[in-house]
Amino acid sequence: MALVNEHFLKLPGNYLFADVARKVSAFKSAHKNVNVISLGTGDVTQPLAPAVVEALHKAADEMGRAETFRGYGPEQGYQFLREAIIKNDYLPRGIHLDINEVFINDGAKSDTGNIQELIRWDNSIGVTDPIYPVYLDSNSMIGRSGVKDAHDRWSNVVYFPCTAENNFVPEIPNRRVDVVYLCYPNNPTGTVISKEELRKWVNYALHNDALIFYDAAYEAYIQDPDIPHSIYEIRGARKCAIEFRSYSKTAGFTGVRCGYTIVPEEVSAATLEGKRIELNPLWLRRQCTKFNGTSYLSQRAAEAIYTPEGKEQVRKTIAYYMQNAELMLKRFRTLGYEVYGGANAPYVWMKTPHGIPSWRFFDEMLNRAHVVCTPGAGFGPSGEGYARFTAFGTHEQTEEALKRIERWF
Amino acid sequence: MALVNEHFLKLPGNYLFADVARKVSAFKSAHKNVNVISLGTGDVTQPLAPAVVEALHKAADEMGRAETFRGYGPEQGYQFLREAIIKNDYLPRGIHLDINEVFINDGAKSDTGNIQELIRWDNSIGVTDPIYPVYLDSNSMIGRSGVKDAHDRWSNVVYFPCTAENNFVPEIPNRRVDVVYLCYPNNPTGTVISKEELRKWVNYALHNDALIFYDAAYEAYIQDPDIPHSIYEIRGARKCAIEFRSYSKTAGFTGVRCGYTIVPEEVSAATLEGKRIELNPLWLRRQCTKFNGTSYLSQRAAEAIYTPEGKEQVRKTIAYYMQNAELMLKRFRTLGYEVYGGANAPYVWMKTPHGIPSWRFFDEMLNRAHVVCTPGAGFGPSGEGYARFTAFGTHEQTEEALKRIERWF
Repeated sequence: MALVNEHFLKLPGNYLFADVARKVSAFKSAHKNVNVISLGTGDVTQPLAPAVVEALHKAADEMGRAETFRGYGPEQGYQFLREAIIKNDYLPRGIHLDINEVFINDGAKSDTGNIQELIRWDNSIGVTDPIYPVYLDSNSMIGRSGVKDAHDRWSNVVYFPCTAENNFVPEIPNRRVDVVYLCYPNNPTGTVISKEELRKWVNYALHNDALIFYDAAYEAYIQDPDIPHSIYEIRGARKCAIEFRSYSKTAGFTGVRCGYTIVPEEVSAATLEGKRIELNPLWLRRQCTKFNGTSYLSQRAAEAIYTPEGKEQVRKTIAYYMQNAELMLKRFRTLGYEVYGGANAPYVWMKTPHGIPSWRFFDEMLNRAHVVCTPGAGFGPSGEGYARFTAFGTHEQTEEALKRIERWF
Repeated sequence: MALVNEHFLKLPGNYLFADVARKVSAFKSAHKNVNVISLGTGDVTQPLAPAVVEALHKAADEMGRAETFRGYGPEQGYQFLREAIIKNDYLPRGIHLDINEVFINDGAKSDTGNIQELIRWDNSIGVTDPIYPVYLDSNSMIGRSGVKDAHDRWSNVVYFPCTAENNFVPEIPNRRVDVVYLCYPNNPTGTVISKEELRKWVNYALHNDALIFYDAAYEAYIQDPDIPHSIYEIRGARKCAIEFRSYSKTAGFTGVRCGYTIVPEEVSAATLEGKRIELNPLWLRRQCTKFNGTSYLSQRAAEAIYTPEGKEQVRKTIAYYMQNAELMLKRFRTLGYEVYGGANAPYVWMKTPHGIPSWRFFDEMLNRAHVVCTPGAGFGPSGEGYARFTAFGTHEQTEEALKRIERWF
């Protein structure tokens, strides 16, 4: 008799953004003439850069001619893109990577979800709280998170609260945690981590033989020169950290699908008998077995971001979104809201007024101002009493949303 | 202390095709002037159909304009493609599917590898032998296959031998197997299954409350009108079978990456307490958590296959490859080789002469004829003494390879 993986049944019924979408959809059905503006789901609105579009056309033509057609690519990704990543994203920051340490994927969601396959099912995990739901959900599906308690916390997960009270700086745990997920610039709070704080985490990992899964999907939004773009800027990180990057927000690739993961050759985990096993060949084996490489067109599109024109075009789009973030911060503050993030990240994190619950705030804003945010509680226990706003709208939408919130407020 | 998932360490060190590639590469380094022809890895050589290339250009332009730009698509895939699949691939065969039963992916390898996440880690699995390595490797990574014995067999896997002796018709097991993997037209043997035989498997699954994971990636190569294209042509299959399809071989999408999976609403598995759980919402939850949809461009490319021009162009390419298969069958038989498959599938399965081991045959053919095949033993115990040849070369390569084999022979 085929038995179901019952760990799935412990999960919250829906993925957070599906819940938000359903509520918005219900509101729209009941209010057909109302134009709802979404500053909720973190999807981009600006078109692909011209250099990227050109690369897509060129790749499409190549695929249409026998002499230049490409079938299966390497599961790990094409050399041209892996070399461009090393040369442009790491070398200028003094980080030297081998080409075999770079794995191209179809977006950071896949790899941040799949990476946990490399570790034992009963390793304990630690997450900053609030957090991107994929880290915990993917661990829960295999039973690693344990069971949910009455306060909506997983029994085998250590939470590091990040709230206004601790200025969103998570405290280094005083107990054993085998694997730590960090995301900086942070989704959802929009806050960043200093080199000094990041060094504490790397040292914790080295000292406790823990692993750090470091999600740097929003690094392109960092404006402050002192903020680290990569965990490998910290000495020792090559021994304990795996880093995830994405073109989704960097270059509007949410519909194109391309990102990459760095697995340094030195990163290892132990067997029960204490033998060290390098994770790089294990990840390659995983990818060769369950993945067949990213679309050739998407990889050529990503390569185009590293041309001089591509870089300039992408920089302009990021500046465009950061103007939205700046505007939101300013106007929210004028209205007396407590807001965080938004300076080195495309997210603004708001404390709901009078501490009203996130979902109630979401509902009221949707019904009264016709603006969609993401309820903080959806990102974990410490997100309760907050709401996330994204900078990925158009200027016009963002302006209009702020006007409506002002009128409602 | 982070502990490694030790199940990975029980796996064969490399993915089969990586082993073949390394041997070929070593030979080429030592014989720089020799032109090696590969009829090994099943990669296509013909360019994308003009209708597909046109769709890619159109999609690239859409992505470059703000008014038509598309960000995140639905994780399950765009409606336009899911509707085209239902209308073109299933309705003409009398199969009615709901749009929520169709899941677009980035190729069948991902989903055939990931689908096992839905079932309990200790369910037993059964596979036809020889077999595409992904099914077993993906189960081994989570420990479901058990351990390998001295004869290279996994302890928790039931093998259904398919050899010349039983005319490649696997026998229905007389013991309990929870999940059965079937692949028809078969990779690697190139053989097919009749409706009558497939009905026996569906009845076995219904009777034993087992699941069938049915890989139909090569269905476009079926020429004989009596051979089933989909397992849903069999009554009752909607209750027990999940079907995988791919555009890789159908339309040369090995570098474009797109395929799909059908999870009927009736398919379910039991909890330990005997409660029935439908797998469709679980698969949706899995995809929403660990996958962010297939590239918009790849989905538009796939849609173009269903236009009248697209259909005609794709049909011509398949006919081109099937001419290679026919030629191989004919010439191999003239030379006195025992060969199978190749009539409704792009693979020809050869019994090695005098029963010499597959890898030795591979080495000799590479060294003496400079032609690459895939050693049958790489596909499982019953593949020993066989070799796989693919029809995906050009006519010229195939002709030349056959001439060389003739001279060598």
